[in-house]
Amino acid sequence: MDKEYLLFAKEIALYAGKVMLENYDKEVEKGYKEDKTVVTMVDKWINHYLIENVKKRFPSHSVCGEEESLHNNSKYVWVCDPVDGTGMYVNHIPVFSFSLALVEDGVPIVGVVYNPSEDKMYHAIRGKGAYCNDKKISVNDKKLGDLGYRSNVEIFNNDLLDEVSLIRELKATSKISSIGSTVRSSMAVAMGDFSCEIFAGSEHGNCDIAASELIVTEAGGRVTNLLGEIDRYDGMIKGAILSNGVSHDAVLEKVKKYIL
Amino acid sequence: MDKEYLLFAKEIALYAGKVMLENYDKEVEKGYKEDKTVVTMVDKWINHYLIENVKKRFPSHSVCGEEESLHNNSKYVWVCDPVDGTGMYVNHIPVFSFSLALVEDGVPIVGVVYNPSEDKMYHAIRGKGAYCNDKKISVNDKKLGDLGYRSNVEIFNNDLLDEVSLIRELKATSKISSIGSTVRSSMAVAMGDFSCEIFAGSEHGNCDIAASELIVTEAGGRVTNLLGEIDRYDGMIKGAILSNGVSHDAVLEKVKKYIL
Repeated sequence: MDKEYLLFAKEIALYAGKVMLENYDKEVEKGYKEDKTVVTMVDKWINHYLIENVKKRFPSHSVCGEEESLHNNSKYVWVCDPVDGTGMYVNHIPVFSFSLALVEDGVPIVGVVYNPSEDKMYHAIRGKGAYCNDKKISVNDKKLGDLGYRSNVEIFNNDLLDEVSLIRELKATSKISSIGSTVRSSMAVAMGDFSCEIFAGSEHGNCDIAASELIVTEAGGRVTNLLGEIDRYDGMIKGAILSNGVSHDAVLEKVKKYIL
Repeated sequence: MDKEYLLFAKEIALYAGKVMLENYDKEVEKGYKEDKTVVTMVDKWINHYLIENVKKRFPSHSVCGEEESLHNNSKYVWVCDPVDGTGMYVNHIPVFSFSLALVEDGVPIVGVVYNPSEDKMYHAIRGKGAYCNDKKISVNDKKLGDLGYRSNVEIFNNDLLDEVSLIRELKATSKISSIGSTVRSSMAVAMGDFSCEIFAGSEHGNCDIAASELIVTEAGGRVTNLLGEIDRYDGMIKGAILSNGVSHDAVLEKVKKYIL
């Protein structure tokens, strides 16, 4: 059954990628949410397409999408961020991803991420490893402070974390970026490129993280919320740290100092 | 003559892009500089190729490269960053650029930037507009605080600017990223995507900024150092603010508060 779910998720991902690229250089209709993040018609179309297809193929399942949801009171929830990195997408920086996980009783069991501008499809099934374009991937083994250790910290305006003070502390021993897509950065962790992604987004945070949680874990990394706990991914999460595992506790210790 | 210079710069850029892409998925030999930034053989090859070609084509000119220079005591200096965003390049994030300017008496007169992963060639000749893939480009007209205003601030460890405090202040009214390539971000300003790039790199900072200074200016924007002054680009600069013009003074005022 997991393979059927995976195939379905990949089909949706390829469609999403096609829609993203077709509209990449166009003036897409957009608006701004309360937190001033941008949302486009592309996000909405993809989210809606997912819901229509879940209704057809898995009519008893629920959908939790960043832009639209479907409540069926099922233990199976498709958790989706149709375009992670919309701020980069609308500014033509090729760092944005589609992200979809099937969550069973709060736990991601199938996860797919697709970066159409790079044509990279990442996937994982719980217990069966993580893959990029069907090649097995794994995290690196750098410790915080090692040369080449890069933490990515997305900068939000919310009340979970004082990211700015955290950046000040981390930059003494680690390279820091904020590439604009927490999903793309998490895939860099899964690939062994980056060593850690710190995400303090609040609203719909589970949509951003669910697929990455599984892919990073299956690549040998570790994922917790900002307090070091394991969250359910069918509802609100308290941010996320997605790391190579080796450095998780060291990063967590620093993060905890700046929780608001 | 400017057109001959431009053609030469584009030839070097295309070669550089080819070398970058050929080595993008390989394990390229790399090392770390004193400031812990990474440098690869690719940076060195491209820089060296430029020097060999300047010797052949413009033997009286000088070269100021991020990795290697050629001192001919000429008023013409080719100022080059062979791979801007090497940290992204080695981590397989498609945000890195080749940057080359011909500087005459300290002033960039021809500038070329090339992003091979996007196949986007940006160019400008002083007084003749800015172009991306030969299509005219221009900055946006957003004011600081407007919806969709994005500032990119690269995070360094140096003694020019307290970027972290600046980020804290800017994020209240503006989206912030740190995409890892000041040149790619500057091109986003020239294209009207981002509204401002703030660069506090110190060593070889002129190599990072010379071409972008010209391209952003010719796209209708404004470029100063962190103090609001116009720098010469054949030697050390005091950082840079590359903006859409409209918002320059407002950003400059905030930056000045955090100069170290």
